Amino acid sequence: MSRNICVYLEFLTDSHRRAIEQAAEQTGFSVRFFSPEELEEAKAYVRDCEVLYAHSPELLRAAGTGLKWYCCSFAGVDPYCKDESLFANPHCLLTNCNVYGVTIAEHVVMVTLMLLRRMPEYGEIVRRRSWSNQLPIRSIRDNQVTILGTGDIGVNVAQRMRGMNIGSVTGLSRSGKAKGPADLFDQVLPISKLDEVLPQTKILVMALPDTPETRGILSRERIALLPSDAIVINVGRGPAVDQDALMEALNGKKIAGAALDVMVPEPLPQEHPLWETKNLILTPHVSGNMTLGYTCDRNVELFCQDLLNYAAGRPLEHLVDRRRGY
Amino acid sequence: MSRNICVYLEFLTDSHRRAIEQAAEQTGFSVRFFSPEELEEAKAYVRDCEVLYAHSPELLRAAGTGLKWYCCSFAGVDPYCKDESLFANPHCLLTNCNVYGVTIAEHVVMVTLMLLRRMPEYGEIVRRRSWSNQLPIRSIRDNQVTILGTGDIGVNVAQRMRGMNIGSVTGLSRSGKAKGPADLFDQVLPISKLDEVLPQTKILVMALPDTPETRGILSRERIALLPSDAIVINVGRGPAVDQDALMEALNGKKIAGAALDVMVPEPLPQEHPLWETKNLILTPHVSGNMTLGYTCDRNVELFCQDLLNYAAGRPLEHLVDRRRGY
Repeated sequence: MSRNICVYLEFLTDSHRRAIEQAAEQTGFSVRFFSPEELEEAKAYVRDCEVLYAHSPELLRAAGTGLKWYCCSFAGVDPYCKDESLFANPHCLLTNCNVYGVTIAEHVVMVTLMLLRRMPEYGEIVRRRSWSNQLPIRSIRDNQVTILGTGDIGVNVAQRMRGMNIGSVTGLSRSGKAKGPADLFDQVLPISKLDEVLPQTKILVMALPDTPETRGILSRERIALLPSDAIVINVGRGPAVDQDALMEALNGKKIAGAALDVMVPEPLPQEHPLWETKNLILTPHVSGNMTLGYTCDRNVELFCQDLLNYAAGRPLEHLVDRRRGY
Repeated sequence: MSRNICVYLEFLTDSHRRAIEQAAEQTGFSVRFFSPEELEEAKAYVRDCEVLYAHSPELLRAAGTGLKWYCCSFAGVDPYCKDESLFANPHCLLTNCNVYGVTIAEHVVMVTLMLLRRMPEYGEIVRRRSWSNQLPIRSIRDNQVTILGTGDIGVNVAQRMRGMNIGSVTGLSRSGKAKGPADLFDQVLPISKLDEVLPQTKILVMALPDTPETRGILSRERIALLPSDAIVINVGRGPAVDQDALMEALNGKKIAGAALDVMVPEPLPQEHPLWETKNLILTPHVSGNMTLGYTCDRNVELFCQDLLNYAAGRPLEHLVDRRRGY
């Protein structure tokens, strides 16, 4: 079998294609690119491919037992970890692209400020064309922020909160360790310490992958541990939050606000009560939007780097543990 | 005449009152506090006062020739500089309270991200309960930001933009110099260089006092110098912008967006075309909202510091040049 790479992505520019072609040539691969409209052509081609760079369960399912590496252009790879049957080759390597930290961290800073500065209410005042500036607002500075998940997103959030003179930054991760410069976090704790930090948390940022351990991690009991002026921001995966309990806490003013970029289900049906929940900023899963040039450039860079690793027999840098889920 | 201080402010806590009382006692003054409802009582008392700490042209007008120092709790003192007749004593000192840098800079970061991330449009999508996440968004990083006015606000904006990995920060001020750490700005230029920097400016932040020199400074001709992906944010004073030209540029998509916290007139009348201008975030002069504990604490601190200076015959630190206007 020839050594083929199938690339099926919507965001590539000419210079991205050239970079991938160069890396392929260097490593003895041939590569073909398919646009979003060419799914059927891609499915036919991928049968004889060793490498697939895409984010399409359907295309992955069409690959043969010769597929040895699937590079997913997304950061969240839960659909590929939950369903073994997607891989004809059970030993196929899976990598992801953790390149969304910058854009998602910018989203986190934005919605944090919008909640503290009462923008949903001021927006409503402006829509009515009235004039009032007496709603009390709060500063981001001097708060304690707790970041659940200290990967690419968590590190970028911590850096930006530091730049806004945040009081303290606590990170929580499975290992109790964080990537990035040591002084970004005041402390990094294992997730088992979550109950201890929630009562002091003013801003809770959730940036967790969807795994059996993270599902429902922000339970009703834990929401009750938050102070009444706390805000909750979820940019990881929807199932991490007990959504019913969160809606009750918001409508009952037990916490000050929330911003959900991920929820259950997505898309949210028209009649869902989340749409009407108080002090809640909803966004339709936009925080990791692929339109940032920077995000796309880094995505292609990561693939090309790992292609060199793959061809040389070195470990892939962005390898996912399919059983662990990230 | 006894040495009296009249304090007429809405935001004081008990601990603020105690701090002012202590400073007064230390300097041989007696002090009385009036709540917002006690304007008439304050007007009667201020006739025999040497010092007034407030933000009320009406109360200032009621003071006698014995008033030697008016400490305005606002940063923008243009109403007091435009109208000499407010001061019975032509030599009365005027100070202001430049303590709004933190809260206004947080507003600037918030609206910058909201414009780059298309939040007005995504907000509309969510209000319709529909689901779309395909609008292209942009990152704050790698842009050139130009900050008109390098005082307390400009410095705090620069610091926060740095924390978001902004490409470069240009400051413009009358003197061509800036306060704050030297490395916050890539360059600080005199305002006369404005035309040269506008074509490279992606984010234009305006934080200028209202003076004859700043009125209309963002003219039609200068708006035309901005690139089509530029955004304009005004948190200084409304008259600095040619509002008609800005509305035309926004509606004609000559620039990408704007956020006005100040405008002409305020409050904005119901039928004003600004309400319907495209890609414009309007807020009802909230960016310097006095509800932040930090802002209020610093305000009282500045007054007490300058009261010690005043009593000791030292120059006041926050003295305003009434002819210059800031």
